[in-house]
Amino acid sequence: MIARVRRLAKKRGNIVTGIGDDCAVLRVPPGHEALVTTDFSLEGVHFRREWHPAESVGHRCLARGLSDIAAMGGEPIAVFVSLALPQNLPQSWVNRFSKGLLQLADKISVSLAGGDTAQSRDGILADIVVVGSAPEGKAILRSGAQPGDGIYVSGELGGSSATLARMMENPKRKLNPRDFPAHFFPAPRLSLGSVLREKGLASAMIDISDGLSTDLDHICKESKVGAVLQKNAIPTATISKHKHEVDLRFALHGGEDYELLFTAPHQKRIPPRIAGISIIQIGQIAKGDKAFLRSDEGTFPLKPKGWEHFKSRK
Amino acid sequence: MIARVRRLAKKRGNIVTGIGDDCAVLRVPPGHEALVTTDFSLEGVHFRREWHPAESVGHRCLARGLSDIAAMGGEPIAVFVSLALPQNLPQSWVNRFSKGLLQLADKISVSLAGGDTAQSRDGILADIVVVGSAPEGKAILRSGAQPGDGIYVSGELGGSSATLARMMENPKRKLNPRDFPAHFFPAPRLSLGSVLREKGLASAMIDISDGLSTDLDHICKESKVGAVLQKNAIPTATISKHKHEVDLRFALHGGEDYELLFTAPHQKRIPPRIAGISIIQIGQIAKGDKAFLRSDEGTFPLKPKGWEHFKSRK
Repeated sequence: MIARVRRLAKKRGNIVTGIGDDCAVLRVPPGHEALVTTDFSLEGVHFRREWHPAESVGHRCLARGLSDIAAMGGEPIAVFVSLALPQNLPQSWVNRFSKGLLQLADKISVSLAGGDTAQSRDGILADIVVVGSAPEGKAILRSGAQPGDGIYVSGELGGSSATLARMMENPKRKLNPRDFPAHFFPAPRLSLGSVLREKGLASAMIDISDGLSTDLDHICKESKVGAVLQKNAIPTATISKHKHEVDLRFALHGGEDYELLFTAPHQKRIPPRIAGISIIQIGQIAKGDKAFLRSDEGTFPLKPKGWEHFKSRK
Repeated sequence: MIARVRRLAKKRGNIVTGIGDDCAVLRVPPGHEALVTTDFSLEGVHFRREWHPAESVGHRCLARGLSDIAAMGGEPIAVFVSLALPQNLPQSWVNRFSKGLLQLADKISVSLAGGDTAQSRDGILADIVVVGSAPEGKAILRSGAQPGDGIYVSGELGGSSATLARMMENPKRKLNPRDFPAHFFPAPRLSLGSVLREKGLASAMIDISDGLSTDLDHICKESKVGAVLQKNAIPTATISKHKHEVDLRFALHGGEDYELLFTAPHQKRIPPRIAGISIIQIGQIAKGDKAFLRSDEGTFPLKPKGWEHFKSRK
């Protein structure tokens, strides 16, 4: 695997030394800080071999890491992937995993600069590390939201978790990944994140990996604020060839959409599209420490329901 | 675990934002490049719960990563640890693992800046990432050795693998970790690596994690050179309270000593001790692409025997 990765990895601008030394040597642009994120992708937790083609597993594994860089308004520099693989895993699975991962890496011009491989006792385990950069002091944190700020999301929500729910309901039925890209091949919002950072539009930002209610709660906790969401404004995704609109609970609590959730001071004009992605205001930051959901029926507490992957069904 | 780590992690100079955001934000000193290394530590491969106290597993896990930074002549900035843990693992094991890891981190003043936790199907799996820095263009690579350069090692070799061999021969007998520090609590040679880089003494460097014969082969391959080692010069370790000298095969082929192996142009004077660690010349870089071992009996090819952890016995 390492040999294969080494062949496939290309030296690009900011990678001084890649695979083949004790460490990778990376150039962080002058006046920039380094961003580092690390995420596990585990068989049985984040994917199942019978549901997820290996290419999708590789793609999603990298997308998780890139999305964290996007959520800081950063630019990725290099990717490291460590794989623990069961002894009986076919080489073709690893090749297709690598293909999915490297195609996404290529698309956004980031290189694989290292990693590790080992044998696992049971199940596939990937740990992805993405190193990026942002101009000094300009990374968009979770802690900058102020009462009165608007709350915005990109794209549509709930598509990934609603797709997962379909597979859980009917585990035998194979879905065509091309009809469910939000789940199988999510696009990290790197350009959007960069634009928001360059134009100084966002006061706080996070990517929606755990679900809107949970990730909003992270912003509220780190910024020491509350929030009110407008139920009607929440952009629910459509999935499948038939463009089924997903249930609101997926948009509110489902994870792994990898859209960006951000806040902006009310005087900032947020365009309806940035970098080709629709942006919509879904609420407002308030004083306090709780989130609420407002609709015609009234205003109710919005509890972070978390995103448990397959845990609840195991 | 993350909550615990978050409490324990301290913000130090170069960590702008640690645990609690999408990415950690790190300051790489001006004029420096970033160094990144990632290493798995797997139960059954790198450690066994019945042989290794959890504190030792945590210490060794971090030592592996720090040793890679040392081998570049770098300084560590931040550590990230991702843990996949079986459901039935006692919390006390995790606490003791963290204690071992954080004690070493504290000793060398590096902070934990993030990570991930997840449930594993079977066995403990840790992935350690260490980010460090070195002045631009000054990291010591594996590829700089030239014919005529002297070959040097720090400390003594074979202590770690000879200890492992003892446990394998007699799996029921518990060793006292304090009597076998080279195996249970190895010290990464960060100060030595820094001095060699600052003084411009080393032309190539690697840490001995896979064993002298294998790591020398890495230098030869990356530098496109050969090597001749003097059998009598190789510093074999002594282990246990009784100071038993280990067999030469452990010093030649045993891994995980985490000493530094480096080359230096013949006109450089290498002191016999640097940063408190003894340094000894064990051979010379030659033309060609093979390594040899020379003794009174003659000169024989030195094949990289690798370091297979527990693989051969599984």
